[in-house]
Amino acid sequence: MTEATFDGMWRAISEVGRDPGGGYTRDAWSPPDLELREWFRQEAARRGLDAHEDRNGNMWAWWGDPDTPGGGVVTGSHLDSVRQGGAYDGPLGVVSAFAALDDLRARGVRPRRPVAVACFTDEEGARFGVPCIGSRLLTGALDPGRARALTGDDGGTLAEAMRAAGRDPGGLGRDETTLRRVGVFVELHVEQGRALVHEEAPVGVGRAIWPHGRWRLEFRGRADHAGTTRLADRDDPMLPFAETVLAAREAARRHGVVATVGKVRVRPGSANAIPGRVTAWLDARGPEEGPVRALVAELAPRAAEVACESWTPLVEFDPALRDRLAAALGGVPVLPTGAGHDAGVLASAGVPSAMVYVRNPTGISHSPEEHAEPDDCRAGVAALARVVEELCT
Amino acid sequence: MTEATFDGMWRAISEVGRDPGGGYTRDAWSPPDLELREWFRQEAARRGLDAHEDRNGNMWAWWGDPDTPGGGVVTGSHLDSVRQGGAYDGPLGVVSAFAALDDLRARGVRPRRPVAVACFTDEEGARFGVPCIGSRLLTGALDPGRARALTGDDGGTLAEAMRAAGRDPGGLGRDETTLRRVGVFVELHVEQGRALVHEEAPVGVGRAIWPHGRWRLEFRGRADHAGTTRLADRDDPMLPFAETVLAAREAARRHGVVATVGKVRVRPGSANAIPGRVTAWLDARGPEEGPVRALVAELAPRAAEVACESWTPLVEFDPALRDRLAAALGGVPVLPTGAGHDAGVLASAGVPSAMVYVRNPTGISHSPEEHAEPDDCRAGVAALARVVEELCT
Repeated sequence: MTEATFDGMWRAISEVGRDPGGGYTRDAWSPPDLELREWFRQEAARRGLDAHEDRNGNMWAWWGDPDTPGGGVVTGSHLDSVRQGGAYDGPLGVVSAFAALDDLRARGVRPRRPVAVACFTDEEGARFGVPCIGSRLLTGALDPGRARALTGDDGGTLAEAMRAAGRDPGGLGRDETTLRRVGVFVELHVEQGRALVHEEAPVGVGRAIWPHGRWRLEFRGRADHAGTTRLADRDDPMLPFAETVLAAREAARRHGVVATVGKVRVRPGSANAIPGRVTAWLDARGPEEGPVRALVAELAPRAAEVACESWTPLVEFDPALRDRLAAALGGVPVLPTGAGHDAGVLASAGVPSAMVYVRNPTGISHSPEEHAEPDDCRAGVAALARVVEELCT
Repeated sequence: MTEATFDGMWRAISEVGRDPGGGYTRDAWSPPDLELREWFRQEAARRGLDAHEDRNGNMWAWWGDPDTPGGGVVTGSHLDSVRQGGAYDGPLGVVSAFAALDDLRARGVRPRRPVAVACFTDEEGARFGVPCIGSRLLTGALDPGRARALTGDDGGTLAEAMRAAGRDPGGLGRDETTLRRVGVFVELHVEQGRALVHEEAPVGVGRAIWPHGRWRLEFRGRADHAGTTRLADRDDPMLPFAETVLAAREAARRHGVVATVGKVRVRPGSANAIPGRVTAWLDARGPEEGPVRALVAELAPRAAEVACESWTPLVEFDPALRDRLAAALGGVPVLPTGAGHDAGVLASAGVPSAMVYVRNPTGISHSPEEHAEPDDCRAGVAALARVVEELCT
């Protein structure tokens, strides 16, 4: 690996979308996202790679002819973030992909298949509420009409956000040409738990992604004056919402899954008005589908309306590929995870896919405190280079 | 009263700040608020009244010399709204004030004191979290430095909002000259409960305003990944927040007061992130101060931090003035209320003040469903005209 280049790339993006209080907010199609896309283009150009953005907004930088039969070896991740997220979730995979490619070339490796660095758009779903939008559109798992109409907190749609960024939302949808080029996909990602800490290993390989989903819960009542409306006359949706938050935690414990309410919208949202409506988002995941479904079914009657915004069944990564990579890396740990990734979306669509995790000392993610040690990041790049070499030669 | 003029005024403002789904959002210093200020100026000009905006942003339209010793008879209310509020809370008092003045003039009444229509700025506190900002600044009840630094949801301060509207926030603060002109203040307002329905009376007079306050509660935890963080490893502030919502309702019932959580901010606010911080606003009011204070003291230990953003002790309106108005109106009901008003702020500052309420068939307020029947609005204008005549002749 070319140390200077890795550090240089990391520094180049370290201020993009940085929050005043630390952490990063890089919504899809926002100015920071557009700046990161420009950075990606420049990194590709500097290496003489053939870079382009597909019609779903995903970016690709090819070394070799992408239309080689059988497709190429693609590695990458995403550059968007959750709001007030960390530096590593996403960007570590993209920066490491470029660095791994540099390493292959520095060592004079001659690939027999084309190699590409990829960056998927809107993996986190921070802006429009649905995660992995870019990979789901690519594979056809997300309906383009539904995607265009997805609405952000500011009331604008994804279609409007794309047009404002100079893109044509008319092109969204399953993209056979682009998909055919992906012979195999490897995503490097910071671990979002502490399994590698316990295993005392800097890197690991993914076994599976837990089934997981996101549900929008609507609680309806009647907006009214906070001072003059007697308790008995109130129909305050904040109360069933609060009960549901507590019930979700209790049910998660009972079912052996995790459940989170991390986003809430209150209308009208004035301190002196009883709310008329509370909208909450429930995220639920677990090792098996049954208990996750059971939790949601148990909570559903508490809300006036429940809408599933996304659902991903259990994803088992290609066992042969996974074992080949773990062996190539000298027998590193193989881990399941509760986090969704573009690699999971591609695996579900039949693309041989794998994940390489880099140790996270605290396990904290989706937070400014998310961290990976420089030595572990270097080990990640070396592992990714070895894996790509294994797959392309 | 000049019927055509009342209806015309009502129509002229009926689309300003109107939400697509019904209701109104008229934040202080927002474009709708500036449009309403222009409307106020035009209504004053059309009547040959001497209109101006004081240095706190309150508007005054004088009939007669405002600097007459002893001050004048002032009537009015406010034009800003809660978010997604109703049409009547505020504007009914301003429109009725102009209409009452028209009625006096049409009947050839010759005031012995000057008469004015007033419009106070930012009564609801929807934008900056503190209600009655205009009247509190005028009387000195709100520190101008604190006011300038008040921050809205968009992160901007009141000072910035005023500057963006072409005003100078440097002039904020107690304004003796303006205050001296207010010999007596009468505010007409839609009732925000159903007492007049029970009394079968279209109008009533105010007895008192309950002690009431607003507290900001901070719940702190650690932002983390919603999928990969075990329940046992979580420090999720959404849980104590939810418990506090339920505890507030239970404590309110026990203490015989009302308590409301109508505004919540969650950070980072992503569906797939455990929150790091939840900020909630508690509104609490009751007939007496003790039980309100007891409720807040009981809830406070549940939050990491509790800040009182506003507190208004019990306001008893001037008993002689109140009885005089009730008598002039033929013995209408005299009511207490849980709602704060600029009239209460002025009364606390020693200005003889009174309130006239107009019946609200459902009692609903701070909601698009807020309503008053046209006949009751007409009765309100007639009552206000009688009251102003009683006080100015």
